Amino acid sequence: MKVGFIGLGSMGSAIAANLLKGGHELWVWNRSPQAPQRLADAGAHIAASAEQAFEAEVVFSMLADDAAVRAVLLDSGVLERSGKPRAHINMATVSPAFAEELAERHRACEVDYVAAPVMGRPDVAAAAKLNILAAGPASVIARVQPLFDLIGQKTWPCGEQPARANVLKLAINLMLAAAVESLGEAAALVDAHGIAPAALIEIISNSLFPGPVYGGYGGLIAAQRYEPAAFKAVLALKDVRLALAAGEQARVPLPMGSVVRDSLIDAMAHGDGDKDLAVLGLVSARRAGQAV
Amino acid sequence: MKVGFIGLGSMGSAIAANLLKGGHELWVWNRSPQAPQRLADAGAHIAASAEQAFEAEVVFSMLADDAAVRAVLLDSGVLERSGKPRAHINMATVSPAFAEELAERHRACEVDYVAAPVMGRPDVAAAAKLNILAAGPASVIARVQPLFDLIGQKTWPCGEQPARANVLKLAINLMLAAAVESLGEAAALVDAHGIAPAALIEIISNSLFPGPVYGGYGGLIAAQRYEPAAFKAVLALKDVRLALAAGEQARVPLPMGSVVRDSLIDAMAHGDGDKDLAVLGLVSARRAGQAV
Amino acid sequence: MKVGFIGLGSMGSAIAANLLKGGHELWVWNRSPQAPQRLADAGAHIAASAEQAFEAEVVFSMLADDAAVRAVLLDSGVLERSGKPRAHINMATVSPAFAEELAERHRACEVDYVAAPVMGRPDVAAAAKLNILAAGPASVIARVQPLFDLIGQKTWPCGEQPARANVLKLAINLMLAAAVESLGEAAALVDAHGIAPAALIEIISNSLFPGPVYGGYGGLIAAQRYEPAAFKAVLALKDVRLALAAGEQARVPLPMGSVVRDSLIDAMAHGDGDKDLAVLGLVSARRAGQAV
Amino acid sequence: MKVGFIGLGSMGSAIAANLLKGGHELWVWNRSPQAPQRLADAGAHIAASAEQAFEAEVVFSMLADDAAVRAVLLDSGVLERSGKPRAHINMATVSPAFAEELAERHRACEVDYVAAPVMGRPDVAAAAKLNILAAGPASVIARVQPLFDLIGQKTWPCGEQPARANVLKLAINLMLAAAVESLGEAAALVDAHGIAPAALIEIISNSLFPGPVYGGYGGLIAAQRYEPAAFKAVLALKDVRLALAAGEQARVPLPMGSVVRDSLIDAMAHGDGDKDLAVLGLVSARRAGQAV
Repeated sequence: MKVGFIGLGSMGSAIAANLLKGGHELWVWNRSPQAPQRLADAGAHIAASAEQAFEAEVVFSMLADDAAVRAVLLDSGVLERSGKPRAHINMATVSPAFAEELAERHRACEVDYVAAPVMGRPDVAAAAKLNILAAGPASVIARVQPLFDLIGQKTWPCGEQPARANVLKLAINLMLAAAVESLGEAAALVDAHGIAPAALIEIISNSLFPGPVYGGYGGLIAAQRYEPAAFKAVLALKDVRLALAAGEQARVPLPMGSVVRDSLIDAMAHGDGDKDLAVLGLVSARRAGQAV
Repeated sequence: MKVGFIGLGSMGSAIAANLLKGGHELWVWNRSPQAPQRLADAGAHIAASAEQAFEAEVVFSMLADDAAVRAVLLDSGVLERSGKPRAHINMATVSPAFAEELAERHRACEVDYVAAPVMGRPDVAAAAKLNILAAGPASVIARVQPLFDLIGQKTWPCGEQPARANVLKLAINLMLAAAVESLGEAAALVDAHGIAPAALIEIISNSLFPGPVYGGYGGLIAAQRYEPAAFKAVLALKDVRLALAAGEQARVPLPMGSVVRDSLIDAMAHGDGDKDLAVLGLVSARRAGQAV
Repeated sequence: MKVGFIGLGSMGSAIAANLLKGGHELWVWNRSPQAPQRLADAGAHIAASAEQAFEAEVVFSMLADDAAVRAVLLDSGVLERSGKPRAHINMATVSPAFAEELAERHRACEVDYVAAPVMGRPDVAAAAKLNILAAGPASVIARVQPLFDLIGQKTWPCGEQPARANVLKLAINLMLAAAVESLGEAAALVDAHGIAPAALIEIISNSLFPGPVYGGYGGLIAAQRYEPAAFKAVLALKDVRLALAAGEQARVPLPMGSVVRDSLIDAMAHGDGDKDLAVLGLVSARRAGQAV
Repeated sequence: MKVGFIGLGSMGSAIAANLLKGGHELWVWNRSPQAPQRLADAGAHIAASAEQAFEAEVVFSMLADDAAVRAVLLDSGVLERSGKPRAHINMATVSPAFAEELAERHRACEVDYVAAPVMGRPDVAAAAKLNILAAGPASVIARVQPLFDLIGQKTWPCGEQPARANVLKLAINLMLAAAVESLGEAAALVDAHGIAPAALIEIISNSLFPGPVYGGYGGLIAAQRYEPAAFKAVLALKDVRLALAAGEQARVPLPMGSVVRDSLIDAMAHGDGDKDLAVLGLVSARRAGQAV
């Protein structure tokens, strides 16, 4: 199948590579031109424009945020001029309000639209083990399921309205960031009482809190290893901001989300925005006077 | 071996029953007299006083809080008069400050002392699947290890100073309560956007957040089922209060802990203190105007 | 002098009336047509369009928020086509980012621009007792000072960059909302201990906290009188949201601001957005189970 | 009249000096012996023991906290042995729970008991301008009113139950600390946008927020002058802790109080506990990466 792919950051590149391995004719495009070369070496066609990538039967996009999606697909006229793809699969974590606008705009252009934000860091994407939250017309999701199967371990159907997948993604990332904040606070607490945070992490990740989050971020916090970033603090802040906005829109106070937001801004203020979300551990340590 | 057991609430009874199954001569005592009958039927001896239970080689205690331990063992003179047991294993979640006082008092009376708070609800205790955080002299822990093996799936050595096991327990329960608060907030968020919280819980407990906490408490929140309580809100508030005090003592701000504390007090104010910790979901829903 | 006035809500009408009393030729315009009649009766000219009001020597605008200013003055082309007024005085509380954009757009059109957000409720505006935060070219502010003197008791010069007046306004409203939240919490605390909140308010407003805020909002909270609204909760939430955004933009965590935001969303969720900011007292009471 | 005075810190000394100026026979006592000399030079008698000071007709005490009052008056047996004074006026900020215990203990010993916590820093005490919150039997308060008039500008009757004066004092100090936190956050916000905090303080203290708190603490924050301390951060933390405990006891969540508590612990963690409460401004600045 002829497949387009727009947005080749660390997540996008990894996903695109797996689509390519599946034997599809892949047309890739990125805003900054250097990114696609590795994919080209692997057999991908480099599109001359977003518009060309949008001429495929199914086009995926993995752009940074609302503004990037708006700039590349809407303001540019790409969506309106095109009308060609049978389906556009938007993997970005966008705001629910923008998700609704996107759904409407695609409807007007008669392009099938599926919101498909994913869970997983770049290494998970590379291993084709993503969890995919897919919302849109069931028939469209069914049609692209073989493509999802090339890039993820599981597709979670989230209903017909695309915004729902985005709300779920935001709720999950809110919980993820809250878990990392709680790891940071607990690590600072035990450290202040003379206990190595690594001991705490070993216990919890082998008892109450198995799975990738507590063991993974907990291990980074215990080791005070905040780079390289698999999930940058600045991107986590973006997601928490969107979650809080989705809460405000629906009138849901999220006090724990507010705490996480403040801690992430603290990290930004100390120049740590490009470090891993685990840097919340450093914020907690600094509050406790433990940071050198 | 002759084993004593003081404190037969839902956790204590379940643990004592497993010691009994191990073939030990068990002497049990409870402050309110009705509790031990089921254990007596199973072969336990009912001690006439805490002091008599304290005459065993090893005595376990599972009392509610600092005040209960102080009343039963210190103010009563039981510890001082006794001196008999080769080891006292205190499973209660007490404050680190009191843990240090207890260690000192036991040293003065030449009674070996081990702090051994546990992780697990009563059903986990009944299944002998507890995780045990044990701190105290390594030789004493080694001696009672066969008893720990009868009641838990794993013993985590936490060092020689008993208070460390208590700090770790508080840090873990802080994280547990924070996770449940984040579940409540996330559930309110998706619910306000027309998504069943159960869908959120199914996704996260099968992806980022496997294990008993997110699936268990998340399931209760999604079902709005807050009774019967396996871990009462009022007891969770006690633990969070102790964690915050341990933080203040060591000068560690815990802003997420503060949020959880406020939500738990909100639950208490609405008469829900005896409901399960999952009632934090109801607090989030009420804040969002979703509660009927 | 020929003066224009755009935006005739409760604040705008009161201010415009005072300019009229000063003997100026006032041209007023409002988005919804019914508002200006009372002013017309008092001698104001009703402009046929925002553009006509913008033909005056000095034009004031008092619009609801960023979006309203953008719609009325920018997207409409009013600012670009005009170029006529010697000065535009923007009294709205807008975001610092938009304030900078506005300054730039006015510069490009060669229209003098002054940001002049005000402090004071509608009754203060009617009494010409506003405090005016004025930022823009000093010569322009000097030129319009006689007009400011007709509507306010004091003009505070805030520098040449218009955005600074907006940042100051947001910082002040953040403190105002925080003070009202603290009044609500303190009232709930004393009430729960059997003390009438009115007693607390009497003491503090005659000792540590004189002035309009603690006495005024405190009195409303003690009387549980949340209507009519002099400063609506929904507008306070807008200002707090802008303050938090200004904080995030400059990387300043504002944890107290986050608490106020959550409480205001709680008020919104309970249908109290159009009540007075004092309704934060009801939010505190509800959290404490005191609200009927 | 023969008057006793126990507790001669900076507040106690200033108050005692004013009682002395009123022509009373003053018997003073302090736990550390050096304090009273300046008072002795001014004519005060130095009591050999707390018990001797307690032999006066009316005895004031101004001790640090619950523990100090308990140690000096209860555990020592001073209250029980004495029975001599016609009234004991306790000016300390103690917990409501302890206030109730004290009332009961005094009743048992037939000593009239009045709780009379005060508002004002040491310089206010020296100027005899304190605000006195007095709770206890009306007849006793009437009897000691001439003494109150020597030390304060105003006595606020708070009812017959002593604990009420303490609850009011805690609610007021909670609001005070919240106001200072909001000053710190607002100062950090404007500073990050290039505006001198002093400009903000000048505006608000001459408009919305007149009075000693915003002008006083705001001035200290703007000047980054945290020493000498008129109200130490560590003592403010004590009061906030008592307020939160009084809230928990009566089931009142105080989220803004929780934020202040966390910020004060942050100050303690950075070695600033003995600096003025205004050091909350430094905490806000540090969170924003502004502190050097």
